[in-house]
Amino acid sequence: MDKINLLEKLSQFNDYWKPKIVGELNGQHIKLVKLKGEFVWHHHDIEDELFLVLKGTLTIRLKDRDVVLTENEFFIVPRGIEHKPVAIKEVHILLFEPVSTLNTGNVQDSRTVSRPVSIIS
Amino acid sequence: MDKINLLEKLSQFNDYWKPKIVGELNGQHIKLVKLKGEFVWHHHDIEDELFLVLKGTLTIRLKDRDVVLTENEFFIVPRGIEHKPVAIKEVHILLFEPVSTLNTGNVQDSRTVSRPVSIIS
Repeated sequence: MDKINLLEKLSQFNDYWKPKIVGELNGQHIKLVKLKGEFVWHHHDIEDELFLVLKGTLTIRLKDRDVVLTENEFFIVPRGIEHKPVAIKEVHILLFEPVSTLNTGNVQDSRTVSRPVSIIS
Repeated sequence: MDKINLLEKLSQFNDYWKPKIVGELNGQHIKLVKLKGEFVWHHHDIEDELFLVLKGTLTIRLKDRDVVLTENEFFIVPRGIEHKPVAIKEVHILLFEPVSTLNTGNVQDSRTVSRPVSIIS
C-alpha cells in the first residue's frame, strides 16, 4: 500500500454521515467521516469505537453525560454503551473500529451505511 | 473513561523510542511515541502496525523503498514486512496496533520495551 494523507482524503468527499474507509489492519478499519447535525442514539454490541476529531467540535452524548471533543482529542465508546454524536457545525472525524462495525449500530436508520466505500486508492 | 487530548499526553514525556499507551479497544492499543535517530530493522510476525505522524517527519525504510511521512500522514506496515523507522529530527507518532505488539518485533534490542507504560489516567 501507499501512505495516506488524511487532509487529502478529506478533500475527496463532502457528504455527511457516510464513513469512508482509508485503512485496514488487524481486522480493524480506519475511516474518515464528516458530520453535521444530530445522529441517532445507538450502541454497538461487540465493538468499541474510537472517535478522533481532526477538525471542529464533536459532542458525544452518553446517557449520563456529554463528552465534548475538539481537535486532537479522542474518546473510546465502549461496546454496549448508548451514544449519540452531535455536531452543531461541520466536524471531521477519524474512526478506528472493527471491520464489522455498522455506523448506526443496533438501529436501522435512513443514514445506515451497510457497505462503507473505500477511498484507499 | 475520559477523553484523551493527544497534545497534552505528548507533553507528559520526553524520552525517545518508549511507546506510551493512551487507549485500548478491541484488543488494540493506541500508543504515542517520540522518535529521534535510527531504529533497528525488524518485523512483526502477526501484527500490522499503523504509524500516524502528529509532528515532524518520519521515514519508514522498507527493503524495496522508503516511505516518508509528514504531519497527518499514516502508513500501515503489514505483518511480516521488514521495516526500520528513521527520524532525522524529533518526530511525534501515534501507533495503532494489537495489544501483543512488541516495539522491536522479532528483534531483542536495548530499546525493546516489553511492557509499555500506560498514561491513560
